[in-house]
Amino acid sequence: MERAVLGRAGPAEPGPFLSSARGPEPPGSASSACALAVAAVLPAGGCGERMGVATPKQFCPVLERPLISYTLQALERVCWIKDIVVAVTRENIEAMRSIIQKYQHKGISLVEAGVTRHRSIFSGLKALAGDQPGSRLSKPEVVIIHDAVRPFFEEDDLLKVVKAAKEHGAAGAVRPLVSTVISPSTEGCLDHSLERARYRASEMPQAFLFDVIYEAYQRCSDYDLDFGTECLQLALKYCCTNAKLVEGSPDLWKVTYKRDLYAAESIIKERISQEICIIVDREDKEHVAHLLEAVLKNELNHVKVTSGAPCPSGSSVQRVMLEQCYSFVCVNVMTTDFQNTQKFLRMLEESNLSILYPVVVVSDEQKVQESLRQGAVIIAALMKDRNSALTGQLLVA
Amino acid sequence: MERAVLGRAGPAEPGPFLSSARGPEPPGSASSACALAVAAVLPAGGCGERMGVATPKQFCPVLERPLISYTLQALERVCWIKDIVVAVTRENIEAMRSIIQKYQHKGISLVEAGVTRHRSIFSGLKALAGDQPGSRLSKPEVVIIHDAVRPFFEEDDLLKVVKAAKEHGAAGAVRPLVSTVISPSTEGCLDHSLERARYRASEMPQAFLFDVIYEAYQRCSDYDLDFGTECLQLALKYCCTNAKLVEGSPDLWKVTYKRDLYAAESIIKERISQEICIIVDREDKEHVAHLLEAVLKNELNHVKVTSGAPCPSGSSVQRVMLEQCYSFVCVNVMTTDFQNTQKFLRMLEESNLSILYPVVVVSDEQKVQESLRQGAVIIAALMKDRNSALTGQLLVA
Repeated sequence: MERAVLGRAGPAEPGPFLSSARGPEPPGSASSACALAVAAVLPAGGCGERMGVATPKQFCPVLERPLISYTLQALERVCWIKDIVVAVTRENIEAMRSIIQKYQHKGISLVEAGVTRHRSIFSGLKALAGDQPGSRLSKPEVVIIHDAVRPFFEEDDLLKVVKAAKEHGAAGAVRPLVSTVISPSTEGCLDHSLERARYRASEMPQAFLFDVIYEAYQRCSDYDLDFGTECLQLALKYCCTNAKLVEGSPDLWKVTYKRDLYAAESIIKERISQEICIIVDREDKEHVAHLLEAVLKNELNHVKVTSGAPCPSGSSVQRVMLEQCYSFVCVNVMTTDFQNTQKFLRMLEESNLSILYPVVVVSDEQKVQESLRQGAVIIAALMKDRNSALTGQLLVA
Repeated sequence: MERAVLGRAGPAEPGPFLSSARGPEPPGSASSACALAVAAVLPAGGCGERMGVATPKQFCPVLERPLISYTLQALERVCWIKDIVVAVTRENIEAMRSIIQKYQHKGISLVEAGVTRHRSIFSGLKALAGDQPGSRLSKPEVVIIHDAVRPFFEEDDLLKVVKAAKEHGAAGAVRPLVSTVISPSTEGCLDHSLERARYRASEMPQAFLFDVIYEAYQRCSDYDLDFGTECLQLALKYCCTNAKLVEGSPDLWKVTYKRDLYAAESIIKERISQEICIIVDREDKEHVAHLLEAVLKNELNHVKVTSGAPCPSGSSVQRVMLEQCYSFVCVNVMTTDFQNTQKFLRMLEESNLSILYPVVVVSDEQKVQESLRQGAVIIAALMKDRNSALTGQLLVA
């Protein structure tokens, strides 16, 4: 077990692509959860066989960023989670270290995954138990178990299972069944079907009093560790703890198939396309930005305007980064003078804004004023598509 | 029950967005299925409550075309399905008629849906039973039951269940469970969890000997019709028919949530983005098209070249339609002469190619030759994104 990133103070900066999804915090809820020592274990040792691709699904790129990085970012933003333990296979440990460094994840500890999901979780729990020599981790009161391939949960989803675990010893999110579940006979024919309304799909996150789930894992059989799929079942079988089932939101879905990656990409695109900065290359021409802002508001939910000469000082880059805005438009007053815009683009590329895919529509002032609405439609469309192949391309509309 | 579209000869033209997904036909397989009289029933009366939107999911637009239209197109392409009966609610019957007309669906009969899925299927079966006064439908030997919200099946998926139904009386596609299934206690706590490997998710399509499933529906209770979810279970309970379970492909998934619409859109985009036509506005400049073709081949799987003056005769439009190509590039030899391109666009818009979203990148010959690779990247990116907001927009790269 190793501590991958040390010495960084404070929680990670929340990413805008998920922050827009978080509603207002329930009064007092975070602070009451904060009173507990909470850690999270993320088994990420799967090989992604159902995805039909060579890369394990948790490392598949979504907008060129690995899926697990979105999940880690969402966990990091929850200030009351003290430690996050990720279990990855030996061959992926270097890749995982690179991801942590590139996306500046903080407070993550890596452990080696086992050959099954249950064994990976057990490795994570052992690291948290505090009896490992040299471990910097301390035993939490409650541990959250989540999946690396479920990036779209909200803080409230975690809070609900943590509170229920505190009360019942164990808790897990459930969802209605999408398909009827049937039992095949040995000949591959229908033996019986289950009444759909009487069952639930067990989803993640789950949470446990640490002592309950650690004891369950210590006592369970090799058969459980190798063939079991349900942590709640271990708590029931070995600690007589009937987990509280919490109805989860549809956002708790698991990226399983290739089509789920498409869905994940579309959801992230939608979220980061809610803000845009308009940058005009001469301060005395700010009214162009304001005209454009007015029509863009018809196309987009939120429009922020940043104006000023983009290049010499780099101040616009700083502003774009500070406002955590992942889309912008450069308006050039002189049609042919793309030099400043190109310099600005290079600065952004060098600024390590990893999920930033600038799509730039450059137009001269005259044209913008002539066809504002059409321009706004194009800008909004390019922004929503957010195709990285267009990064840095200059398109004249 | 009404026959919505009559008197059209021959099967519908296969759409290119699905044809690329079909592999070579297994030798003799289609002909052996053709020997049976096969019909299909499509219950489409659901209200889409899980989608979280007002429009029932089967009518939700995917690339501006209703989801059910893709499913119908995929069914129509299977030449050995003689009749397709769609059950829709009374309030959606007009909308369904418009869809059939707009997308030129053939051989579809509409019946009024019941208040539950089982009642809708029963309505469809009654229409096929041949005992309805004035019905033009004849009783099939085998009936396929499918979902309006599963457009991505292949002919082979249907063939497998039809053959198994012929042999066993009933058959249905199944898939492994994605989540563990658990049984809650009355207090909302875990009672027990099912061993995931011993169960399957029941998917669609299913197929039945018509007499078996019709008898089952005639004999079943109101409770079954109102609360049941599984046709295979009715065949078992009322006709002692143990359905054969056929392992289905992952493509058989059901569009259930909003994220599934995103996934469906991405899959369709991917499929229709495999071909592109390059149209040059003067025949003596065809070499530009060939230069562009060469670099586009690095970006795309298939590139077809169509060249010639696009406008006066409309021959380019015809060629685009004949080749069922849904993407094209116009190369203008003279930068400022966009008139021909705009006329061409209008002709395409008027040509009733409903899922065509032309993205046009116009450039002058000089520029194309200067920056071929960059141009190809932009074209490929715009094509893959296929954002309808860019329809008819002229972008100068």
